[in-house]
Amino acid sequence: MIIAVDAAGGEYAPHEVIKGAIKAAREYQVEIALVGRKEILYVQAGRHLGKLGMTIIDANDVIGPDEPPIEAVDSKPNSSIVIGVNLVKDGAASAFVSAGNTGAMLYSSFIILGKIPGVDRPAIGSLITINTGSPVLLIDSGANANCRPHHLVQFAQLGSTYFHGLFGIDAPRVSLLNTGEEESKGNSLAQESYQLLKKTDLNFTGNIEGQDIARGKTDVIVTDGFTGNILLKTLEGISAHWLYSLLQSGQVFSKAYRLSLQALNRDIGMDAWAKRLDYRESGGACLLGVNGNIIIAHGRSQATAIKNAIGLAKQTVEQNIRDNIMEDTYEQTGISG
Amino acid sequence: MIIAVDAAGGEYAPHEVIKGAIKAAREYQVEIALVGRKEILYVQAGRHLGKLGMTIIDANDVIGPDEPPIEAVDSKPNSSIVIGVNLVKDGAASAFVSAGNTGAMLYSSFIILGKIPGVDRPAIGSLITINTGSPVLLIDSGANANCRPHHLVQFAQLGSTYFHGLFGIDAPRVSLLNTGEEESKGNSLAQESYQLLKKTDLNFTGNIEGQDIARGKTDVIVTDGFTGNILLKTLEGISAHWLYSLLQSGQVFSKAYRLSLQALNRDIGMDAWAKRLDYRESGGACLLGVNGNIIIAHGRSQATAIKNAIGLAKQTVEQNIRDNIMEDTYEQTGISG
Repeated sequence: MIIAVDAAGGEYAPHEVIKGAIKAAREYQVEIALVGRKEILYVQAGRHLGKLGMTIIDANDVIGPDEPPIEAVDSKPNSSIVIGVNLVKDGAASAFVSAGNTGAMLYSSFIILGKIPGVDRPAIGSLITINTGSPVLLIDSGANANCRPHHLVQFAQLGSTYFHGLFGIDAPRVSLLNTGEEESKGNSLAQESYQLLKKTDLNFTGNIEGQDIARGKTDVIVTDGFTGNILLKTLEGISAHWLYSLLQSGQVFSKAYRLSLQALNRDIGMDAWAKRLDYRESGGACLLGVNGNIIIAHGRSQATAIKNAIGLAKQTVEQNIRDNIMEDTYEQTGISG
Repeated sequence: MIIAVDAAGGEYAPHEVIKGAIKAAREYQVEIALVGRKEILYVQAGRHLGKLGMTIIDANDVIGPDEPPIEAVDSKPNSSIVIGVNLVKDGAASAFVSAGNTGAMLYSSFIILGKIPGVDRPAIGSLITINTGSPVLLIDSGANANCRPHHLVQFAQLGSTYFHGLFGIDAPRVSLLNTGEEESKGNSLAQESYQLLKKTDLNFTGNIEGQDIARGKTDVIVTDGFTGNILLKTLEGISAHWLYSLLQSGQVFSKAYRLSLQALNRDIGMDAWAKRLDYRESGGACLLGVNGNIIIAHGRSQATAIKNAIGLAKQTVEQNIRDNIMEDTYEQTGISG
């Protein structure tokens, strides 16, 4: 399995991306195709190429994090993102991972790969792990700012299929993010989506409120891309804040405190626990509903996060998510496959 | 100053409400009027009445947490919420504090007190304190699920006036909750609201993303009541989760760990720090834009949270928020006061 990785995308490219790719090649036995300027990549990754089965795909342009996505993608055919997505389109790579401009990843995936038949709106499914050992898929976490109720139903279908594929759980629990438990709660989008979700074959368990996200009450949380993006970033921010506060107080306070903190770490691995929600570690998100496997990593991904994103790409490829989605979509829409 | 307190509202009523009211009477030198069934209140609070200047207002009915607000308010004129709001309307109390049914608090405030002239949509402003010592006002945190851009502008005006009144800060920084920094980001509500906010006299500092809420970058965060409510509850939930995890691991792990945790507490007061976002401690929120001072406490408020909510009520009364809002509204709309 060949996984293409954008070596030019993200705040810590190319150094941390290369480090993460090397780790992933070792840990997951996948072949990595690094996409970026070949002169730079040969210098930085050259000695690993042979023994790890890594290759370099030259891309002499890059789309910056703040460039307007449509203009950038249309005007930069040699950018690492456009080339990476084309590798998936052509079948040269099974998946593409990038920590670069998210908008450019979305737009290039839409126009180059196209949508899976039956899907109106591809959406970003992000795995969140707060509660011990039980990840939750948040969909849409940022692809569609303005949504209609039937879009949320499709997100629920995409999310349910993906969650089943990744974790082997039959009929994952699907919940609608809302402001209360009763079906009359929320804005008109949430109210109307609730009524549609009730009628599907999904394992729809009703509304979920913000305070219950950490409580392992559901598998798939469905919302519009505006609310989902704010939720995801809030979780990141508050966790980073706790982590920072703990570290910060360790610097300010007594030696006794530092020793306490060390003992705490030794006993419960607090670092590992706090890092679960740390974007520097988190494994990225999958763009669900496009014709190919696209993994969007956080712009601030460092080596471990890149490695984890490549791991998610491998799982996504192995589960054959695209065909599962197509099958489920056909079943749900009544079109015979 | 007389502050009416709903002794029948919230999960821990009446016991914790009475405890909190007694604490507040001592700490803030305010006169408390407990609203609830007089037989119960005389038994539970009777011996404190004289020396603390507390009184009892009989309300022989109660609105449950899950009752539909409109029907409940309309059919229960003798409920503690309806009687409490009427005390404010009649000038018998300067403010009313309740941890009861939020919908019933909103609806009874709208119909009994009415709106301040110039305000279309009253909104809930919640004080969040994550970053050390710098509270942020989130508005609207739940009164209006469906909003139009000009409503968000009014929330910004209400929030700015309230924040100025509470903390004496001139021209508080006002930010729009959004999915990115650029003004083109977000759903159509956010995009249009941004354009309107730019044209106001407010100290509008642009968009704020979820990860920056804990970073002290702004004073007032403006959003619709759907997104705001989800954000607030998510912050509560994740903080409760961290707190629980810390306590939980203390029970499971070694004695060395428990000693470490004690040392940590001693050194940095971690308990106090974690509790800042704990709803059992947090001081409630103000319903801004109605003709009277209404403080909405969390349904799970215990004594300290009730005490803090009464403290917020006192501050709100002292700052004469209603007149400030009216003055600011007239200035902003160009109507001469």
